[in-house]
Amino acid sequence: MGLLSPVWAGSAVEAATGDTAFLQAMLDAEVALTRAVAPAGAAEAVAGAVAGAARAELYDVRELALRARSGGNPVIPLVADLTAAVARTDDQAAAYVHRGATSQDILDTATMLVAARALPLIVADLDRAAAELARLAAAHRDTPMPGRTLTQHAVPTTFGLKAAGWRTLVLDARDRLAAQRPPAQLGGAGGTLAAFGEGAGLLARFARETGLAEPVLPWHTLRTPVADLGSALAFAVAALGKVAADVLVLSRTEIGEVAEGAGGGSSAMPHKSNPVRATLMAAAARQAPQLAATLLGALAAEDERPAGAWHAEWQTLRELLRLAGGAARDAAELTGGLRVFPDRMAAHLELTDGLIVSERLIAALTPVVGRARAKELLTAASRRVTEEGVSLADALGDVLPPDRLRELTDPTRYVGSAPALVDRALERGARPQQRPDQRPDEQPGQRSDQQPGQSPPPAP
Amino acid sequence: MGLLSPVWAGSAVEAATGDTAFLQAMLDAEVALTRAVAPAGAAEAVAGAVAGAARAELYDVRELALRARSGGNPVIPLVADLTAAVARTDDQAAAYVHRGATSQDILDTATMLVAARALPLIVADLDRAAAELARLAAAHRDTPMPGRTLTQHAVPTTFGLKAAGWRTLVLDARDRLAAQRPPAQLGGAGGTLAAFGEGAGLLARFARETGLAEPVLPWHTLRTPVADLGSALAFAVAALGKVAADVLVLSRTEIGEVAEGAGGGSSAMPHKSNPVRATLMAAAARQAPQLAATLLGALAAEDERPAGAWHAEWQTLRELLRLAGGAARDAAELTGGLRVFPDRMAAHLELTDGLIVSERLIAALTPVVGRARAKELLTAASRRVTEEGVSLADALGDVLPPDRLRELTDPTRYVGSAPALVDRALERGARPQQRPDQRPDEQPGQRSDQQPGQSPPPAP
Amino acid sequence: MGLLSPVWAGSAVEAATGDTAFLQAMLDAEVALTRAVAPAGAAEAVAGAVAGAARAELYDVRELALRARSGGNPVIPLVADLTAAVARTDDQAAAYVHRGATSQDILDTATMLVAARALPLIVADLDRAAAELARLAAAHRDTPMPGRTLTQHAVPTTFGLKAAGWRTLVLDARDRLAAQRPPAQLGGAGGTLAAFGEGAGLLARFARETGLAEPVLPWHTLRTPVADLGSALAFAVAALGKVAADVLVLSRTEIGEVAEGAGGGSSAMPHKSNPVRATLMAAAARQAPQLAATLLGALAAEDERPAGAWHAEWQTLRELLRLAGGAARDAAELTGGLRVFPDRMAAHLELTDGLIVSERLIAALTPVVGRARAKELLTAASRRVTEEGVSLADALGDVLPPDRLRELTDPTRYVGSAPALVDRALERGARPQQRPDQRPDEQPGQRSDQQPGQSPPPAP
Amino acid sequence: MGLLSPVWAGSAVEAATGDTAFLQAMLDAEVALTRAVAPAGAAEAVAGAVAGAARAELYDVRELALRARSGGNPVIPLVADLTAAVARTDDQAAAYVHRGATSQDILDTATMLVAARALPLIVADLDRAAAELARLAAAHRDTPMPGRTLTQHAVPTTFGLKAAGWRTLVLDARDRLAAQRPPAQLGGAGGTLAAFGEGAGLLARFARETGLAEPVLPWHTLRTPVADLGSALAFAVAALGKVAADVLVLSRTEIGEVAEGAGGGSSAMPHKSNPVRATLMAAAARQAPQLAATLLGALAAEDERPAGAWHAEWQTLRELLRLAGGAARDAAELTGGLRVFPDRMAAHLELTDGLIVSERLIAALTPVVGRARAKELLTAASRRVTEEGVSLADALGDVLPPDRLRELTDPTRYVGSAPALVDRALERGARPQQRPDQRPDEQPGQRSDQQPGQSPPPAP
Repeated sequence: MGLLSPVWAGSAVEAATGDTAFLQAMLDAEVALTRAVAPAGAAEAVAGAVAGAARAELYDVRELALRARSGGNPVIPLVADLTAAVARTDDQAAAYVHRGATSQDILDTATMLVAARALPLIVADLDRAAAELARLAAAHRDTPMPGRTLTQHAVPTTFGLKAAGWRTLVLDARDRLAAQRPPAQLGGAGGTLAAFGEGAGLLARFARETGLAEPVLPWHTLRTPVADLGSALAFAVAALGKVAADVLVLSRTEIGEVAEGAGGGSSAMPHKSNPVRATLMAAAARQAPQLAATLLGALAAEDERPAGAWHAEWQTLRELLRLAGGAARDAAELTGGLRVFPDRMAAHLELTDGLIVSERLIAALTPVVGRARAKELLTAASRRVTEEGVSLADALGDVLPPDRLRELTDPTRYVGSAPALVDRALERGARPQQRPDQRPDEQPGQRSDQQPGQSPPPAP
Repeated sequence: MGLLSPVWAGSAVEAATGDTAFLQAMLDAEVALTRAVAPAGAAEAVAGAVAGAARAELYDVRELALRARSGGNPVIPLVADLTAAVARTDDQAAAYVHRGATSQDILDTATMLVAARALPLIVADLDRAAAELARLAAAHRDTPMPGRTLTQHAVPTTFGLKAAGWRTLVLDARDRLAAQRPPAQLGGAGGTLAAFGEGAGLLARFARETGLAEPVLPWHTLRTPVADLGSALAFAVAALGKVAADVLVLSRTEIGEVAEGAGGGSSAMPHKSNPVRATLMAAAARQAPQLAATLLGALAAEDERPAGAWHAEWQTLRELLRLAGGAARDAAELTGGLRVFPDRMAAHLELTDGLIVSERLIAALTPVVGRARAKELLTAASRRVTEEGVSLADALGDVLPPDRLRELTDPTRYVGSAPALVDRALERGARPQQRPDQRPDEQPGQRSDQQPGQSPPPAP
Repeated sequence: MGLLSPVWAGSAVEAATGDTAFLQAMLDAEVALTRAVAPAGAAEAVAGAVAGAARAELYDVRELALRARSGGNPVIPLVADLTAAVARTDDQAAAYVHRGATSQDILDTATMLVAARALPLIVADLDRAAAELARLAAAHRDTPMPGRTLTQHAVPTTFGLKAAGWRTLVLDARDRLAAQRPPAQLGGAGGTLAAFGEGAGLLARFARETGLAEPVLPWHTLRTPVADLGSALAFAVAALGKVAADVLVLSRTEIGEVAEGAGGGSSAMPHKSNPVRATLMAAAARQAPQLAATLLGALAAEDERPAGAWHAEWQTLRELLRLAGGAARDAAELTGGLRVFPDRMAAHLELTDGLIVSERLIAALTPVVGRARAKELLTAASRRVTEEGVSLADALGDVLPPDRLRELTDPTRYVGSAPALVDRALERGARPQQRPDQRPDEQPGQRSDQQPGQSPPPAP
Repeated sequence: MGLLSPVWAGSAVEAATGDTAFLQAMLDAEVALTRAVAPAGAAEAVAGAVAGAARAELYDVRELALRARSGGNPVIPLVADLTAAVARTDDQAAAYVHRGATSQDILDTATMLVAARALPLIVADLDRAAAELARLAAAHRDTPMPGRTLTQHAVPTTFGLKAAGWRTLVLDARDRLAAQRPPAQLGGAGGTLAAFGEGAGLLARFARETGLAEPVLPWHTLRTPVADLGSALAFAVAALGKVAADVLVLSRTEIGEVAEGAGGGSSAMPHKSNPVRATLMAAAARQAPQLAATLLGALAAEDERPAGAWHAEWQTLRELLRLAGGAARDAAELTGGLRVFPDRMAAHLELTDGLIVSERLIAALTPVVGRARAKELLTAASRRVTEEGVSLADALGDVLPPDRLRELTDPTRYVGSAPALVDRALERGARPQQRPDQRPDEQPGQRSDQQPGQSPPPAP
């Protein structure tokens, strides 16, 4: 019920990936199959009869889960129940239930339906986050702040460039998820389609009925679709982990350059306002890569159905979908409410008394004293400023006129191409370009031949 | 509800690690805390009043999960509800609820209570499996079968030695789990116990009330207990993966040297009898190591409470407990019902026409023709037997008398120390030796000072 | 020196990713930088002088490795040495060495150069493997063999379909690797390009000089290129793990349906012919996913240069490149030499006395006795055949005429669409279609504006 | 050569785990074997002759690595070379080389020898770090500093308690490594010891000769020793990651409460003093858990020698040893040189104008206004202090007398049991208690029966 998973509790993706959603997707796959295998004239009638019984609420999910143990997957008991339910109203139609299929056909297709229904939810939240970040990047295109490397002030940058960088990762994640084309799976007991008496034509028809992509081959042991989903989802979660990592640093009490709009409270300390969204995103980013590793490892699947590699995918992929859905929701909320404090940033730029532009001073001194000597001067001055507390001007002596030094050590004048890079990054649209092999209106999980007014595949 | 996790659906560990079990453990931790912090005279009365409201069934788990989002953990809303519930009957007692504690104290203690309650269930199933394997090892101490290396017949071994090896791993897993001593956690907001006005004494008292081990320091960011649990659980699951891997090989249609007692059926093929238990164990073994990696990674936790590393542990540890509980149950069932076919083993020993003891033939020929020449002879003969189909006797020519060759190539006479090694392995008791620091009757999750008749901490 | 890594020892990728190769790539990056930053008129002269000193053999790799410790990366000591070496011949040119850059610019660009040089080597071996698999798939398009699910005979398939499936995965891997466009990295100390006094134009010029892709933004903390490489490489290794897993099963002594052309020997047993290539591929597939997880985890990189996440990438990515290079080499060798034994396959199809087509018999009996009764009949018959050893004909009784039964239970007539699916799979070309944004002759790691006769970037 | 691994380049563990060290360990294992298998009277002479040829410098490691490819492991070519080398001086002795053994016996024993030689080096550095941390904890037992949770100031703590916590983790790591007892491996071709004509006695003798622990069973496919090493090493690296994470936070420019003694420089910015040791430790902590996962996964090893799981261990375990050795060295250096700035800590305690003790204020106000009202008051006051910049005294109004408020909000008076907890933690000795089953002088990798003056097993 999500008690241990605040990152995805209550999210749209949680519902779209629950046991009930998987059950409904299995039933949807069975309906699509009957439509594909029944004789052309009878298909509508058969599918209609099956569809009447193919509603998740008619089944006891828990009981199916328990009965799944004896055969090792939930499709076996479900087929028995569905067949019996259909037979109660239409004995003819019951004969077409699951005909020619194997459990894996149904479970794989159901998993892809679930993924196809969950992905747009994740993408939508990534789009929201990207839009918020575009706004922040534009607003703070020129807001100077310390750039930090290995935890230390390095050179100035702008908050806009940081936000533009976050957005770039969010769009990278979005594109990788939006590029997924989860395929239907149909192969029969051994992937030869033998029980169907028909080959590629059936594959195409079944895929069309499900609204999923048509595979070239049955992919029961060619697990590219699952591995790709895993890598893309883990990429998304880990990329959001970068946003979280930065927000956590910048929110620290001593730094305070940003704050989550509505920080989280504490059970003991009324003054706390915790960066909760960033915390939950960071937690997700610590989990997702290892889950993707499990899915990549499942590629090494022996035979025409592996004894274990397949079963290891189910819960792992679901948890990845949920972590991505939850982290994307949190990212949308976090970026939508983020408060930015340019004054704090400006104050911090002064913390090192100009040393944050030591690089610039070397460049300025090089024509005067040579590069090697310039480095030496700055290194010595840095030490005196840091350890003895003298001012940089005093530490440098009269090597540069005071006015010139003051001008050079103004950190706000040393943000380089940061604003221009923001502009460049914002040129990238939130919507990826149409790929040549993709019809404009095509959506995963939707039948491309649907008529207006025709309902999409039932979502749970 | 377990639809995608047949390995643990319906198991005892599933129930012991569910959201309700975690909720009850949090409530148990709160009760223990009130008993530890209330003034000596009032402690029983306060704790009694709190215990009356500290029953999981009085709370809406789902609603708590949703409210957990704003602060990032479920203790914050729970404390509010518990305090209100106690206040309705005893305002005085309500003042002691959660006093001085922080959310992490409660959630960590609850997690350890859940672990302490789940571990004996897992250990019990490992003990069952070890007992069954002891039986199999003794029964088949001398049953010869092909030893296989890199998938090829190598030299003979006995099935007893294989079973004894499985048992050794099961006992290794059992010992690592039984050695866990999950500690209570209490530190207050920053781990200094400042709000309690009391130090080590309180720590000891709270630990005793929970029945958990007493830590030397509050371990809010010293995550040894969680990392150790993770490694031990993943060890157990992966060690059972060895049993599964062997059963899967030996069950193959072409090999058929063992079979699961009740194989799993198929939705399409009535002749199938699948090694389902081994399959589910193998699937668990593919997932657990990466989950343990996430917990090991969470050791690197910054500050007095990390922003993410802590939150990444919760669901990960739970899933590991469940995979271990499920795999152990399957191991107990599998080993209890395993059918062994010595005739198939014997027949396979003949498959290579004696080459399975080529090592022995070299040893026998070395005194006659020298070691190098002996190797050459056998290498050449092996090639002729394998590729041309001639008999080994013909391939070797008259280098050895026929009777002697027949005797030497009897695989059943070349099992070496396999039977003696079985005896040696079986000397290891299923119960580990008592450690000096452990009282004989002490159980994790049980109060060591409990009086006879006093009930253990409430399990959900 | 590769003693513990036979999978990649001696491979082309090993050399292309060695410490010397990385050193040369760093030097190449420094040369490219001087060409990009020196004044237009002086660029050729400066770059020429720097190039003269930018040869890996002039440096002591081990000493650089040791000196790398104090600053935490090898670029710092290298820049000192390179600057000194250039200054010995051309003091003017020395002033341009590393100008404006930070260590990360050089190390990241070098890593991408190494990747860009290693990827075509991996792709070439995958292409070789794909070509061999196309040959095998075509040759065995109709060769029947048992399809196996959960280790048990399921229904017949053809070896051609299995080989075509392997090829599909190999091409999936190939496409994912060939799609990588490793970008140059240049951002200066904090990613703002401030020290260069120039922005996007410089980025483009530097990228062109390196022959790498031009990034939209400096990606010092936007690690998409590294994470993508990691996922694609792990995909490739794990996908080859499927080929290995199948070859290992089919090579088993009891199965023997395929054999590696030159099996591996044993130190003790002259008769052994081990599937060594498959073994090494399987070993690589067990390692790669977790390495990819480390790279995905490194996406969560705080600040303008993270303290640890960046450093964790270096050795991890190198090992992934090597595992992929080694596994691809082994795949090319394995598929090129694989021996296939159709007779063994045919013999195994008889092992279950016709039960391997139980699915077909149900279909045939359904019109006669109804589907439910057909299933019952076959289930009962299966049990008698398997456990009592009676023939399927006897077990079924006279429910079907003997001739019809014989025909139906001929496994070679029940391979379904396997041959047609082979044809379909082979239509997919080994070379991916040109993408619209890619010039036909463009290769990663090559300057697109190179003149004929101009040498590519020096490979070590 | 370590160019990409500054964390372990030049460390003692690097040398102890190099290819040459592994080669020498294999040769040591072969020498030990001849001593164990040769007839009692001849053993010394035979072993002496073999030892003369068993020096790593006599072999070409690279050539062995390349020849390892055909059989898949380096022992096969090594045995050929060693046998030939011995035969050149003593033909009799040559006959005992590798007698009865399989490649895995030698490689596994060599790996355990390498581990047994590397572990004390790691433990020694952990001991150094623990000693330094004991010093820091004692020196700063009472030094107040902000405790931080979820990145925000929570309540005060002391730096001593933080250091004591680090030391606890270091000792936990130390104990887990010191508890390892790497065993010798001897089983022959299939683990039955058949070729030796002798059983447990030989196992004991061989183990004694190697100085390693004696296993109960040959563990060729019972990989507990490798999995345990992996988990213990990853624990150590990840536990040091906690130290690193804290040092990185406390070193931030804005925080500056600690600094590494000799910070790392930059190639561009002379003012930088980077926490390089902490950075390299953090990088190691990001890699180790996933490597341990690979080793845990290798437990699921089929047959009497698995085709892949075994081979996946070699490089993975070596890298883990190196990461642990490097991180422990860095930890010893970091803790030895760490500079602590109590003034900065004290200043930061004032940053929240007393809110850091909001918890204490609630406790103080509860008797006056009740707990609920106290919380409300503080929550409102916190908001005004944080957002409007009013002083806490003004925000609270006259609910408490000014003097009392000043006293209560003195953060240095609210460190609770921190000092006492430091004392308690320091009672734990750096040396773990002797275990009952361990002789005081026993060291892994040392022969327990060695005579004074007798040299230990040759280290490379």
